Amino acid sequence: MKEYQFSSEFQVRDYECDIQGHVNNSVYLNYLEHCRHEYLKQLGLEFPELVSRGISLVVIRAELDYKWSLRSGDRFMVGVILEKISPLRYRFLQDIYLLPEKKLVLKARVTGTGVNAKGKPELPQEIVLALDRVS
Amino acid sequence: MKEYQFSSEFQVRDYECDIQGHVNNSVYLNYLEHCRHEYLKQLGLEFPELVSRGISLVVIRAELDYKWSLRSGDRFMVGVILEKISPLRYRFLQDIYLLPEKKLVLKARVTGTGVNAKGKPELPQEIVLALDRVS
Amino acid sequence: MKEYQFSSEFQVRDYECDIQGHVNNSVYLNYLEHCRHEYLKQLGLEFPELVSRGISLVVIRAELDYKWSLRSGDRFMVGVILEKISPLRYRFLQDIYLLPEKKLVLKARVTGTGVNAKGKPELPQEIVLALDRVS
Amino acid sequence: MKEYQFSSEFQVRDYECDIQGHVNNSVYLNYLEHCRHEYLKQLGLEFPELVSRGISLVVIRAELDYKWSLRSGDRFMVGVILEKISPLRYRFLQDIYLLPEKKLVLKARVTGTGVNAKGKPELPQEIVLALDRVS
Repeated sequence: MKEYQFSSEFQVRDYECDIQGHVNNSVYLNYLEHCRHEYLKQLGLEFPELVSRGISLVVIRAELDYKWSLRSGDRFMVGVILEKISPLRYRFLQDIYLLPEKKLVLKARVTGTGVNAKGKPELPQEIVLALDRVS
Repeated sequence: MKEYQFSSEFQVRDYECDIQGHVNNSVYLNYLEHCRHEYLKQLGLEFPELVSRGISLVVIRAELDYKWSLRSGDRFMVGVILEKISPLRYRFLQDIYLLPEKKLVLKARVTGTGVNAKGKPELPQEIVLALDRVS
Repeated sequence: MKEYQFSSEFQVRDYECDIQGHVNNSVYLNYLEHCRHEYLKQLGLEFPELVSRGISLVVIRAELDYKWSLRSGDRFMVGVILEKISPLRYRFLQDIYLLPEKKLVLKARVTGTGVNAKGKPELPQEIVLALDRVS
Repeated sequence: MKEYQFSSEFQVRDYECDIQGHVNNSVYLNYLEHCRHEYLKQLGLEFPELVSRGISLVVIRAELDYKWSLRSGDRFMVGVILEKISPLRYRFLQDIYLLPEKKLVLKARVTGTGVNAKGKPELPQEIVLALDRVS
């Protein structure tokens, strides 16, 4: 397992599973987002507070490799590495592991940017600082 | 706009929008899945019926490029092209366009395979036939 | 079937079904909300536009009688009757029927009120007018 | 606060919030269901395992009184009391409280029954025993 900058632990809830008894593909994006927001919060960035100031953080690309399916009751962890990839873009590397055996479930690369109130790409200063801090 | 093998039209529902007033990233995967299942149905493959016979169709990779954000009440279409990429794998190219102006919202490439009741990759014969029909 | 003031038609999507193959209980609330918002839109009230003006319409009570379970692919309609029950409260009577046989699936009574920017109950004038129009 | 037979603690995730910045009404049903399933698990009843044996536990009525709105990041607990109300029916009394101040957020009464593989109401013996144990 890689060294992650941040990680959080979850448990599958039954309503997240579909007819096949697996967690539905789209729900993994919920897990990933929740973990990113938790990490941002730890870095001092409250997502809803940014929204209220007219700053949107938006995902522009997501690559997801599904390696194993989570099922009802499974415990898992999401690990995150955040990196700056250009003056306007950052990327979250996020991996999900089934617990306790740490079997790889999903590998994700999520690229994002900031959008200001005028709809133009712009990374707010505090995000730049947070990115500098972790890079 | 490309020539699609299949397309369906949707409208954003308010409960699909998040604090930012946009459709949440994960919800696009719901739209894409629904459109794939509609297409499979037209090709003679009922998803829940496959499940009841022990056959799972699983997504193994998804690449999503978010180009524009859908908002409350927006009408949009999802276009699909299905192609065989190996004896065991198929890929859906799926694009979402805002209507009526046909502005590109999302480009997706979703790769899948079949898994039999023993958990081994296997494309059921009828899916192979459907893939041959569309390729 | 009662005479409804408004109705809309839906189709179950596979991702709305749970391990049991039925639409999950919570998803019916999504259907009901979407239908209420569609009706409000027809009455001239755009839900997101109200939000942007600091007015929240909130549900304060919901009673749901589940009579039959919707399954993958089922078509259904939601019928609505809106009525004023006090100067500050309104109620939606909403019934869901499986189509084409019009079998009753769910009966709901959803009571709501308005909340102004200060967090106090208040029905905006245009909602009062809409309620007077339909009562 | 009442004496509950079981309780669990949660935290609101941003994707559960809607345009108004509140947890969407339907999401509370997810919280309630997850807590009921956790409680059933503690009583020795695994929900997905019941499904695989052809037994469905279905909600037939839900009454929900929304007293306060949860928002992004809020911590809360769900308390449960399970009671038998007839040979074929049971009821969950479930209350949600904002933490740490224990402000009441939602009061719910959820009535359910069991359905056997033939679609007839039937409470499996182990559920009857569990109900006797808690009553």
